[in-house]
Amino acid sequence: MRLYLGVDGGGTGCRAAVAEADGPVLGRGEAGPANIASDPDGALVNILAATRSAMASAGLDESLTKEVHAALGLAGSNARGFRDRLMRRLPFARAHVVSDAVASTLGALEQEDGVVAALGTGTVFAIQLAGKVRQIGGWGLVLGDEGSGAWIGRAILSAAMAAHDGFRPSTPLLESLVTEHGGADGLVSWSLSARPADFAALAPRVMASQDAAALDVMARATADVVRSVELLQNQADLPVVVLGGLAPFFSGALARRWTVRPPLGSALDGALWLARQGRGH
Amino acid sequence: MRLYLGVDGGGTGCRAAVAEADGPVLGRGEAGPANIASDPDGALVNILAATRSAMASAGLDESLTKEVHAALGLAGSNARGFRDRLMRRLPFARAHVVSDAVASTLGALEQEDGVVAALGTGTVFAIQLAGKVRQIGGWGLVLGDEGSGAWIGRAILSAAMAAHDGFRPSTPLLESLVTEHGGADGLVSWSLSARPADFAALAPRVMASQDAAALDVMARATADVVRSVELLQNQADLPVVVLGGLAPFFSGALARRWTVRPPLGSALDGALWLARQGRGH
Repeated sequence: MRLYLGVDGGGTGCRAAVAEADGPVLGRGEAGPANIASDPDGALVNILAATRSAMASAGLDESLTKEVHAALGLAGSNARGFRDRLMRRLPFARAHVVSDAVASTLGALEQEDGVVAALGTGTVFAIQLAGKVRQIGGWGLVLGDEGSGAWIGRAILSAAMAAHDGFRPSTPLLESLVTEHGGADGLVSWSLSARPADFAALAPRVMASQDAAALDVMARATADVVRSVELLQNQADLPVVVLGGLAPFFSGALARRWTVRPPLGSALDGALWLARQGRGH
Repeated sequence: MRLYLGVDGGGTGCRAAVAEADGPVLGRGEAGPANIASDPDGALVNILAATRSAMASAGLDESLTKEVHAALGLAGSNARGFRDRLMRRLPFARAHVVSDAVASTLGALEQEDGVVAALGTGTVFAIQLAGKVRQIGGWGLVLGDEGSGAWIGRAILSAAMAAHDGFRPSTPLLESLVTEHGGADGLVSWSLSARPADFAALAPRVMASQDAAALDVMARATADVVRSVELLQNQADLPVVVLGGLAPFFSGALARRWTVRPPLGSALDGALWLARQGRGH
């Protein structure tokens, strides 16, 4: 009996599930982060650890791993070169590597047409139409990721500096942010080494605030998120699934334009489905 | 006879000039970069090397260095902590450390009222009014530096990614930029480790281009530069001095609103003037 393996790997952890062509999942496993762009070697170690754990929990001999047909949805796989290098090092009989966004989309929508907005530290948007998945965004904070947690955090700090210089009225929130970072100079020093996750840590506070500057940042973020879904819809009216830590904030605005519904399954479900299809995206 | 030392230190080099209270410069010296935020130890080494060289070329004994009254205009001195740490390590009888922008302003305007726009890899703006200098901007690319060379380079690449996703029409320049970086994935990989100077290296090409996307980026950059000068003018009509590698591009737009005139002197002149005044800003 052929075995199929799905793997969902991202910045916080890696999950694997093994199954036959039909029927329930036989075994599951978990391991540490698997972002193949930021840590290719560590990602491989964790993918293999999660796989071993899934095989063991299914009562399958580890030697069967080399006969498995696998599909992996992995963060960082849209950065050039990383996907090819990983695929040469995987021990499976067949392996398809797709982005975590594609696996999330397949899991969230199964075979149905729809749009997925994944809103966390970064943002990425995808549409599935007649079995084809197209992804936009997901380019990172330097060149894109408008509306993401990192973008929101950076935008409120940028507003704080603009207010400090006199370009806009200050607000209690903006003044607090400058003071908490040890003044304008301290805030600038901090920003120069801050990573996207550091900026994103400010997002919950901005989202919850009624401060005029926060409302302004969130209005811009909402407009950017709506604009991305609008581009993918291309006049259509497909259901929208909103994923990620920022979903509770943005779901309302998206629901005013489109039908927002919960995901049918997880990114791991999407990867396993893809493995069973025996093809990549 | 008391000796006065001016030092102008930035990311590309460090210059020193020594003089008496009146009269011409007695000796000049140069050394490597002196950005006290990005390389505090290297900056100190180069400040001291430029000083030694200036003393030697003036025929002054090095032992006189500890009696000198110095003023230093240094890049990175507005990042918290760096200025204080440097001042404790300087060998001079007295030392004032100001930002490179303040030294440029004092050199460009001498004692006259006016506005200085320093437009290079980064941007910083200053006004001198009745002997007082106020600086805005200069916060770096992460939170600010709108209109700078780095901002221009990043903006055109961001536009290239937006066109790639379908948010805006593509143009020949945008397509070239994506292709030259090995496709969208390659461009994103490159952007994640690019420093401000890497983005700024694209600015001359954007400034010279008649491509629709380039004109759009430069219109936004121009609006941001004009807005900064406007904020400092605060309805006044002071002369404007435009400094830095981007000055040839922006001088025209600024000259349509205000009197644009060449700098009276350099940042080194400004630092020496400050040393002779015996006070900091």
